[in-house]
Amino acid sequence: MKYPNGKSSSFRTKAVTQQKTSFSNRGMTLEEDINETNSYYLNTNKAVIHKKPTPVQIVKVDYPKRSAAVIKEGYFKQASTTDYNGLYRNKYIDFEAKQTKNKTSFPLSNIHEHQIEHMQAVNNHGGICFMIIRFSVYDETYFFPAVKLFPYWDSQFNGGKKSIPYSKIKEDGIIIPFQYQARVDYLSIIDQLYF
Amino acid sequence: MKYPNGKSSSFRTKAVTQQKTSFSNRGMTLEEDINETNSYYLNTNKAVIHKKPTPVQIVKVDYPKRSAAVIKEGYFKQASTTDYNGLYRNKYIDFEAKQTKNKTSFPLSNIHEHQIEHMQAVNNHGGICFMIIRFSVYDETYFFPAVKLFPYWDSQFNGGKKSIPYSKIKEDGIIIPFQYQARVDYLSIIDQLYF
Repeated sequence: MKYPNGKSSSFRTKAVTQQKTSFSNRGMTLEEDINETNSYYLNTNKAVIHKKPTPVQIVKVDYPKRSAAVIKEGYFKQASTTDYNGLYRNKYIDFEAKQTKNKTSFPLSNIHEHQIEHMQAVNNHGGICFMIIRFSVYDETYFFPAVKLFPYWDSQFNGGKKSIPYSKIKEDGIIIPFQYQARVDYLSIIDQLYF
Repeated sequence: MKYPNGKSSSFRTKAVTQQKTSFSNRGMTLEEDINETNSYYLNTNKAVIHKKPTPVQIVKVDYPKRSAAVIKEGYFKQASTTDYNGLYRNKYIDFEAKQTKNKTSFPLSNIHEHQIEHMQAVNNHGGICFMIIRFSVYDETYFFPAVKLFPYWDSQFNGGKKSIPYSKIKEDGIIIPFQYQARVDYLSIIDQLYF
């Protein structure tokens, strides 16, 4: 297959030679693993990638004397973009991360229309855009390029499935290796695919 | 002067030929102007640049039956990065925006150490990084490259001033033109400086 930079990838080979990373999680969530990974990347001056704060609609704030302002009423808002973005090797990086307990497929209900539109825009403007999908029952975490996601997203509105089969995630994605300090070492996949 | 891409700029000429943009604001804050500008850029498929949500430390959440979760206690956290980032012409874009009522200088207390460190990292990894500084009394909004900011930041710890003189902002910055739909048309400055 072809990638935005015109290089073909060795996806299927990778999927076949994947390693089990069953020692990787130890009860940490995908978000915690990615946050630790991003801290490691930042501290070692490898990349500048951050999770965006959770969007909150703030309705009521108290300003007590001589102490910090307190939010007394607020609501969670739906994100209009992905959760993570930043900069690596001069390139704009953008991704969403989701874990599922499902064994046979990744439900598309995990993603919102706005996020797909955002990923398409990022792709069109030359960014590196992807999803990180963890199947927690298998303890496997996949790098899934946005360009591979879009056809599944579109097909659900044309009579297609509302999910991506696990077998297709294995086929179109690359398993992300566990490293001691970079617990979800997705930059190693970016190095393979885009440089 | 030289910019990261090696092109020299026409800064001083621009500063001299600047136009007053006194019709631009009409009571809108800099943040509102930039949000409108970013929406325009996004809707016209020119760039993908968003403001990050305000970071909130969520302490207590109620989950009422049959209605949305309510945040009952939360606190504002200090941002560890800048407020805005995104993608334009294949490049990672990152900036902070501040307005001041000061007439003679821009106080460095408007910026935090973490933000400076972030801007330095972005600069080192090949991103386009800058500040947008508005002097509200003059109704002037400047594009101020991060590389121009760092020496002022450092000098305050070596007996230097705790602010950047207005005259230096005029000299080292470029005034950002007001456009009807792109109220703070900073991409026009990026086009001049970096491409």
